[in-house]
Amino acid sequence: MTDSLTRNDLTERLSQILGPRGLTTDGADLAPWLTDWRGRFHGQALAMVAPADTMETAAIVRLASETGTPIVPQGGNSGMVGGATPDAEGRSLLLSTRRMNAIRSIDTAARTVVAEAGVVLQTLHEAVSAHGLRFPLTLGGKGSATVGGLVSTNAGGTQVLRHGTMRALVEGVEAVLPDGSIYDGLATLKKDNRGYDIRHLLVGAEGTLGIVTAATLKLVPALIDRAVVWAGVASPLVARELLLMLEARAGREMEGFEIVPQRCLANVLKHIPGTRSPLEGAHPWHVLVEFGRDDAAATAPQILAEALMAEAFERGLVQDAAISVSESQAEAFWKLRDSISEAERTEGPAMQHDISVPVADMPRFILEAGATVEQRFAGTEVAAFGHMGDGNVHFHVAAPPGADRATWPDHPGKEISAFVHDLVVAAGGSISAEHGIGQMKRDELGRLSDPARLMALRAIKHAFDPKGIMNPGKLVPL
Amino acid sequence: MTDSLTRNDLTERLSQILGPRGLTTDGADLAPWLTDWRGRFHGQALAMVAPADTMETAAIVRLASETGTPIVPQGGNSGMVGGATPDAEGRSLLLSTRRMNAIRSIDTAARTVVAEAGVVLQTLHEAVSAHGLRFPLTLGGKGSATVGGLVSTNAGGTQVLRHGTMRALVEGVEAVLPDGSIYDGLATLKKDNRGYDIRHLLVGAEGTLGIVTAATLKLVPALIDRAVVWAGVASPLVARELLLMLEARAGREMEGFEIVPQRCLANVLKHIPGTRSPLEGAHPWHVLVEFGRDDAAATAPQILAEALMAEAFERGLVQDAAISVSESQAEAFWKLRDSISEAERTEGPAMQHDISVPVADMPRFILEAGATVEQRFAGTEVAAFGHMGDGNVHFHVAAPPGADRATWPDHPGKEISAFVHDLVVAAGGSISAEHGIGQMKRDELGRLSDPARLMALRAIKHAFDPKGIMNPGKLVPL
Repeated sequence: MTDSLTRNDLTERLSQILGPRGLTTDGADLAPWLTDWRGRFHGQALAMVAPADTMETAAIVRLASETGTPIVPQGGNSGMVGGATPDAEGRSLLLSTRRMNAIRSIDTAARTVVAEAGVVLQTLHEAVSAHGLRFPLTLGGKGSATVGGLVSTNAGGTQVLRHGTMRALVEGVEAVLPDGSIYDGLATLKKDNRGYDIRHLLVGAEGTLGIVTAATLKLVPALIDRAVVWAGVASPLVARELLLMLEARAGREMEGFEIVPQRCLANVLKHIPGTRSPLEGAHPWHVLVEFGRDDAAATAPQILAEALMAEAFERGLVQDAAISVSESQAEAFWKLRDSISEAERTEGPAMQHDISVPVADMPRFILEAGATVEQRFAGTEVAAFGHMGDGNVHFHVAAPPGADRATWPDHPGKEISAFVHDLVVAAGGSISAEHGIGQMKRDELGRLSDPARLMALRAIKHAFDPKGIMNPGKLVPL
Repeated sequence: MTDSLTRNDLTERLSQILGPRGLTTDGADLAPWLTDWRGRFHGQALAMVAPADTMETAAIVRLASETGTPIVPQGGNSGMVGGATPDAEGRSLLLSTRRMNAIRSIDTAARTVVAEAGVVLQTLHEAVSAHGLRFPLTLGGKGSATVGGLVSTNAGGTQVLRHGTMRALVEGVEAVLPDGSIYDGLATLKKDNRGYDIRHLLVGAEGTLGIVTAATLKLVPALIDRAVVWAGVASPLVARELLLMLEARAGREMEGFEIVPQRCLANVLKHIPGTRSPLEGAHPWHVLVEFGRDDAAATAPQILAEALMAEAFERGLVQDAAISVSESQAEAFWKLRDSISEAERTEGPAMQHDISVPVADMPRFILEAGATVEQRFAGTEVAAFGHMGDGNVHFHVAAPPGADRATWPDHPGKEISAFVHDLVVAAGGSISAEHGIGQMKRDELGRLSDPARLMALRAIKHAFDPKGIMNPGKLVPL
């Protein structure tokens, strides 16, 4: 904010742009949005602005640009890296996309939907489902995560194996750039070579290059039915063999392939009410596989799953397997997977790392890096779970029993994270597979990136946002 | 070049970096590379440098950056928009990638190949074919087009329908950035959210943000067999209905869908020796469809094509159809399609426009824009042919009989092109679907882009290349 403009002047002008519904300055109303949902990051803001449409968003950004006021865009506030939490200075505007929540159009022939930034993922699922279509990305926070946040973080989730991350599903974007101009890239052309790809630059930019106000998203036919398999396996290496077999046999019908170590399942069964193990015996590792069909002529997923599990059993790849016989059982299997983090939090503190390495290297990485970390930090226990088919696991390091919840995450927690990140970089991997960088990993990205990447990140940021008003302090290392 | 550095000093230093094989200053040796293959653009250069590897490329770029010397990267010199031809000032270094032509590795399990920028497309096809794999992008210039050029122009071709443009096939890039630093993004991670996507920025950047020195490319299983259909249809609208039917019935087996107006076929039959029409009668429009299978369990393409054409005939979508019964016949059908431009040049001058509109709108655009242009410019004839399944046709406007080959392309040719581009923009389309912008369309891009896009293009260019040494005068409107 320039000296010539007082706080009151600014809110007065915002009020003229937005009207009473779009502006919140009351501390109690603001409070819930100034802390991330995990409670790890806290900030302050001058006000929360909730524009009704793209034009109002542009007017706010022009005013912010003119006055040098930082803007922090926020969707469902369900991010994992503090990307939507302002800093503590209190000079920022928190820009909520919640009122821009229209589904502008659904094109059933082209199989696309144009959704505004504030549309909640679950609402989107329901809206396109009514047309026999499906938006093939889902994740735990679907009840709060918004289209704008999903685009801006290039979100992943549990269906990436077949359908890719958001980047593969975003066919067009509309955004307000940091100078207040509106980039209209919603029209979808299959081929367009008019210069640098702005769309791919905005996907995953975490609001640091502009505010995504709407997106054209790819849809696929709705699933007719599905079957979820829970299987016990001997090790991540065997799980990988199973994955290769299933890809060869049923690549088009396999919607997800997740790995779960015994420790995670045990925590879930212990802490989450109403859960029970799908298998009778104990197994060191588990996989969850989802098969689905969108074509009535294809083999029914149930039958496909039974045949494939029989073959996998004969080949010694699975120790035991249960196949869901109803939707509620399918959901119960998924609940085991989706409750891992919640159960872990009940158990005690843990350092969480969202990492990827080349897909083929992941089984060995899980085993070797896990052993290395447990050896280096006595008493810790590593649990790596998640999207093994994407070369992406959540590599969690649980504190020794009795560790202090308040202090352990800082010390030795941060040291553990740096150690894990070093192992990931040595394996040619990424310290952020799907959660993004935000404020949580910014310094680590700076520490671990080569100079050419850092140069490029900083140059792009400065080019788009020379005044540094767009989500400052996020993503780009200083 | 700074005043302190003479031309001789510069060549002396280049010679130290490159040795005798890598530096050419002789005018006669340079000449062929200073004109684009269509003979429309002519330039001059200080020297041609041909680095042997990425390190030599980086050393050249550092020297160029230090001395303010422009660099024009060139692959097979088969581009369509003058993107690899230097300006007339003679201050530039022409950087040929031809010596960087190693296929560094082929990973048959991950189905990827790491190829250096100078690898010729046909060489790449052959190299991966030996492993039972296929690089699913092909185009007329495959005998000269290089990996670096294909990446830098986001090339398309005749297999985009199923496999996408280069953007969809590039899994990683290595590039020398304008400050001489090396961006190593060859490692392929399925998920990686470490900030802005540099790969997608370099794809299609036409060498204006750096020099692509190698790429990791996606491979698919080799085709077991294929069948090519040549069918007569009543109009582009019917062709579109046929396309929708084939997509629904055989989306996974359809490799290409091209539309050819009668005028183009007649020109080919008239001017290209050894060609004959696949069908006996006359038809106003034709389509070429390729079916292929990479899975022995799938229906043989021949049988699939016969069944589908029988159904299309019954539904009144095709007037007549021929299905190739041998590889040589399949190639003969493709030759008809691939010879359209050559035959057209023999016939007389024409303005060529590589345009796209939303796929569903293309049939109407072909008919309406064609009629509008022919009405506005008396005596011209429009022929729109090509990748209808991608919403991309080559919209050619042939001069009236007897037009002057030398002067017509300037007047009224340029006026015609501006008129066509206006129609494309009004239809929400792109004035460059697959050929890029280069020097040919730069001013038109400036005239027809909205301010936000222009701002973004210029900002990115300036951020990466503040000295403006990387392929100056290309792509980014002034």
